[in-house]
Amino acid sequence: MNTKDYLPLIESTLVSIFEGKEPYNLYEPIRYVLSIGGKRLRPTFALMACDLFGGNVNDAVYPACALEVYHNFTLLHDDIMDNADMRRGKPTVHKKWNENTAILSGDVMLSQAYEVMCRAEHSLLPSLLSVFNQTTIEVCEGQQYDMDFESRNDVTADEYIAMIRLKTAVLLAASLKIGAICAKASAKDADLIYEFGINVGLAFQLKDDWLDVYGDVKKFGKKIGGDICCNKKTYLLITALEKASGDTKKSLTDWISKESFDRDEKVKAVTAIYNSLNIGKIAEEKMNSYYQKALESLSQLSLSADKKEVLKSIAESLLYRED
Amino acid sequence: MNTKDYLPLIESTLVSIFEGKEPYNLYEPIRYVLSIGGKRLRPTFALMACDLFGGNVNDAVYPACALEVYHNFTLLHDDIMDNADMRRGKPTVHKKWNENTAILSGDVMLSQAYEVMCRAEHSLLPSLLSVFNQTTIEVCEGQQYDMDFESRNDVTADEYIAMIRLKTAVLLAASLKIGAICAKASAKDADLIYEFGINVGLAFQLKDDWLDVYGDVKKFGKKIGGDICCNKKTYLLITALEKASGDTKKSLTDWISKESFDRDEKVKAVTAIYNSLNIGKIAEEKMNSYYQKALESLSQLSLSADKKEVLKSIAESLLYRED
Repeated sequence: MNTKDYLPLIESTLVSIFEGKEPYNLYEPIRYVLSIGGKRLRPTFALMACDLFGGNVNDAVYPACALEVYHNFTLLHDDIMDNADMRRGKPTVHKKWNENTAILSGDVMLSQAYEVMCRAEHSLLPSLLSVFNQTTIEVCEGQQYDMDFESRNDVTADEYIAMIRLKTAVLLAASLKIGAICAKASAKDADLIYEFGINVGLAFQLKDDWLDVYGDVKKFGKKIGGDICCNKKTYLLITALEKASGDTKKSLTDWISKESFDRDEKVKAVTAIYNSLNIGKIAEEKMNSYYQKALESLSQLSLSADKKEVLKSIAESLLYRED
Repeated sequence: MNTKDYLPLIESTLVSIFEGKEPYNLYEPIRYVLSIGGKRLRPTFALMACDLFGGNVNDAVYPACALEVYHNFTLLHDDIMDNADMRRGKPTVHKKWNENTAILSGDVMLSQAYEVMCRAEHSLLPSLLSVFNQTTIEVCEGQQYDMDFESRNDVTADEYIAMIRLKTAVLLAASLKIGAICAKASAKDADLIYEFGINVGLAFQLKDDWLDVYGDVKKFGKKIGGDICCNKKTYLLITALEKASGDTKKSLTDWISKESFDRDEKVKAVTAIYNSLNIGKIAEEKMNSYYQKALESLSQLSLSADKKEVLKSIAESLLYRED
């Protein structure tokens, strides 16, 4: 099984959902954001889980695409909140159109995500919606914690993990669980694949934080040190603030509070502090601990060894990626 | 039956949904907007419909409150889009907090509305969600048409009616239908009460437009002529632009295009134009035609005469209101 095989079905379904819909000014920004790419990780996870549990992917394609529509809705609104100009190398919706458009087109995407989710077999709606409601609520809660953390300097590593669980991991986990539900997997298996997804999601985000500092500049898509520059409260910075003391702590907090600085100098200095505190290694160990937890859930799934191997290789491809 | 009797149940349920929820910065604006009042028209409609069709209002209270949470979500986002400072005599959420808060708290309200809707009996979810999905999508479409109309001077009366159907009428109609579904009314009755709601909703909005010009200044809550001042494309203005010709048309378009003017002078002049074209009467006739259509749907409902009388008196109290 190659997860790339699902992409044509995902893409054609996404196009069909919004094709020709009016009013034009409401739906054109949605067609735009869905057309400029994205890895389609969430619908791919859903179809893969459905497939692994012996379901027909056609029974999962609408719920899978609902997850992608939902994910893109969060991007529209997050980009307003972060004042981000570019996304996937193209202007964001609120820049190409305006903020009101990004708000309202986003709103209708959330409703459309629910409408598309409800195209599933009706007997599955209570289970599907239970996962989906919890997830869409938790993602907002995660986004709020992330924004709250910006103005705090006492965020603990545990609080950070709780935040990325909500903001990132639950949607990946829900994607797997929703695929499993569409295949009518047992409740136990649906819960186990959800736990697998949570731990892969946490490891995935920790890898993201690590790559920002220790990624290979040639392979990493973005410029190294972006998080350091803007004092983003990543696992690395939070752990460094917890571990540092004396002059090292003073130097770190000085860099954080500087209003003007040379970008490369700051990245170099903060990276040196991270190195002196062994932060890169600590982050990798944390990431690996979640990967191990993911493998534990995996081992308990009632799936054949070769199917478990598929899930393991997907997790590895996400965690040992270089961009 | 007095619809005011439903209010304590509605209020206590709304409080219970958001009580103590965290993160505080996400949920406090929601508790605020739900605490500053509102007529609770939509949940009242839902409970009343459930009651009339012989259901237990306790089976409809969560879906009813989901409608109120949803309605307040639209207010949060509409107030950003309209840059409105005040709502129900209090600062709007984006003024009291900020825009990002109003966006994100609004987003989670939409998800919470779905979560609360799904607390209904599971066998009802396909019907309930079919109505709710269609409605939440159509309300966004109505809001987009309303925004599109701002930059157009050729909006027809039919286009306007289609817009207020989406923006206002469908949610009132859905509230009645959702109550009927909770009472396990027949599909035919659920559709008829929806049609009744659509026509009452259209008449309600036309009355709103009429009151802005012809309301009793002592009884009308807002200042007379607010719509005239900001060139709001109401049924009155659109009809006047359609009917006017020659000097009258020129005078009306002149007033619309003036960048600076004396408020009272403009209101007086445009009202005089409306009077010369008989616009007040035309609007009243249009309103009455929808009220008559509502009564036709009402007459076909399989309800006793006294129950039909309850619905009729609710419609009358909305349409013959003075504020």
